[in-house]
Amino acid sequence: MHVLERPYLVFVGDEQDPVAAKTGIGVAHWVREDCVGQWRLTNEAVDLGLPDLSPGDAMEAGARSLLIGVSPFGGALPPHWVASIIAALEAGLNIVSGLHTRLSSIPEIAEASRRTGRQLSDVRHADRTFPVGTGKKRSGRRLLTVGTDCALGKKFTALAITRALKARGVDATFRATGQTGIMIAGSGIAIDAVVADFIAGAAETLSPDAAPDHWDVIEGQGSLFHPAYAGVSLGLLHGSQPDALILCHDPLRAYVTNFAHVPIVPLTRAIELTLTHAHLTNPAAKFVGIALNTAPLGEADALKIADTLSFELGLPCFDPIRFGLQAVVEAILC
Amino acid sequence: MHVLERPYLVFVGDEQDPVAAKTGIGVAHWVREDCVGQWRLTNEAVDLGLPDLSPGDAMEAGARSLLIGVSPFGGALPPHWVASIIAALEAGLNIVSGLHTRLSSIPEIAEASRRTGRQLSDVRHADRTFPVGTGKKRSGRRLLTVGTDCALGKKFTALAITRALKARGVDATFRATGQTGIMIAGSGIAIDAVVADFIAGAAETLSPDAAPDHWDVIEGQGSLFHPAYAGVSLGLLHGSQPDALILCHDPLRAYVTNFAHVPIVPLTRAIELTLTHAHLTNPAAKFVGIALNTAPLGEADALKIADTLSFELGLPCFDPIRFGLQAVVEAILC
Repeated sequence: MHVLERPYLVFVGDEQDPVAAKTGIGVAHWVREDCVGQWRLTNEAVDLGLPDLSPGDAMEAGARSLLIGVSPFGGALPPHWVASIIAALEAGLNIVSGLHTRLSSIPEIAEASRRTGRQLSDVRHADRTFPVGTGKKRSGRRLLTVGTDCALGKKFTALAITRALKARGVDATFRATGQTGIMIAGSGIAIDAVVADFIAGAAETLSPDAAPDHWDVIEGQGSLFHPAYAGVSLGLLHGSQPDALILCHDPLRAYVTNFAHVPIVPLTRAIELTLTHAHLTNPAAKFVGIALNTAPLGEADALKIADTLSFELGLPCFDPIRFGLQAVVEAILC
Repeated sequence: MHVLERPYLVFVGDEQDPVAAKTGIGVAHWVREDCVGQWRLTNEAVDLGLPDLSPGDAMEAGARSLLIGVSPFGGALPPHWVASIIAALEAGLNIVSGLHTRLSSIPEIAEASRRTGRQLSDVRHADRTFPVGTGKKRSGRRLLTVGTDCALGKKFTALAITRALKARGVDATFRATGQTGIMIAGSGIAIDAVVADFIAGAAETLSPDAAPDHWDVIEGQGSLFHPAYAGVSLGLLHGSQPDALILCHDPLRAYVTNFAHVPIVPLTRAIELTLTHAHLTNPAAKFVGIALNTAPLGEADALKIADTLSFELGLPCFDPIRFGLQAVVEAILC
């Protein structure tokens, strides 16, 4: 793992889509104390609620790294951001990136890094290989967040549950599987960058044997019902061997993001199929809750949907940002 | 893709397990005309039915490459084979390998390659990147072989069906997804070596738009019910968008190979779950047959099992090595 230099200046570029800016939003939400500001190239770009600073101003405010807070579809670096990254290096900042494109693969950025002596950290690219999965049960307890789509709260839910478990005195560890989670946690495995044969093996490595009452709370990735990423989700499910599962869902989303021809799967179907696959490596796996992303809804509507789904599915149903986590924590610990 | 120099001397080493020697067995079966002999380090090693030759004898018989015909569990190169590979380079042979370990990553082999001017071809490692899957329907027709485990005939079945379709005058192409298939076909994508995020995208790339009556016959990998490799199988299924599926099965296998604690899934369950996932990217996907691996059984027993399963499942049930493919070809084309 790379050691990341903090605090961050969070780069938003000209990105106007909050879904694409989920890295920056997540870092600003969970480790705001490590973010001195945001750098936006236009006023229309997503606002993370941090002070707008240039790289030079951020250096003066104590920043050590420019953190690329945007994950465009496909994970490649938009060519028109190269000049901004070089300017940040020249201002004295290191660069932290979670994109598929390695910063060092872009000659101008690699050259500017050498010239300035500043570090390039590609947290999406693990610097090690992993063994083949064994399917063997490990000690300790595990929770995995899964979803009906990408980008609807699997990381937020895992972080909120880790906090809630710790507040109850439970020994719990957040296990990061994506770039933002790794930036927040300071360690983890970018599971979607692992060679396909070793997805389950990498997931086994991420949550090793632990004390019987310890909980690993594992950040889910993608969706079993996603036409591009389902393989990642299935390997992560098998390797994580979760005892407890939480299904993350956006009740207003009718189609998979960026796949307008692929409808979102009904929750009963998602639960049934996920359990079928989960039982291959942990026959005791069960769902303990439904995490709803209700941000665009009014309080009354959000509660109504949560109550309806809770009754239908027989599970605690909550928005981890908005409602309390008491019921789901009870379900996890019972 | 690497251009492979033929004919081959097939290296079996000291491997005694026919499952681990499936690469050599497959190449000897499908392109025997390209194999001048086999090189076994002990008499107990698997016999491919080729003449036993040393690298020097094979060179005199016209061989151009040593093909590593064994895939040990996990895909790494056993250290005690290094001297044999160097001896083959010194005899004048190129090396073709489908192992996870890159030949060029072993300093002694890399040095011997430079010294002798012979080529190292790691066919498992694709030399290109792939786009994210789109889930969009492509023109032309596709068949994918899937399985209840690894190493039970998915490649053999796809090759046999390609031959049978061609014999019927159908325009068909075998699409290789593993090292042996690539060695046989001369091109393809090692799907389990692709970065996890791009499994479905690589599968989409492998079988591009084609004429409406053209069939791509795609080699399956792993199993949706395998604790280590299911992610690969699911991504390949989504990206292949098969119209027709064939389920490959070994009726004598009770547990997943190398996973003695994981029972083989019942065929009805495998069919139901595979179709559920297949319908995400092709709602018209259907099973057209069951391919049995009946090698250890007598003719009468093999026929009895095939008849029983055919009646139970309502599908043509055949051993692609042993029985005719007429019924399954009818089911594909109807």
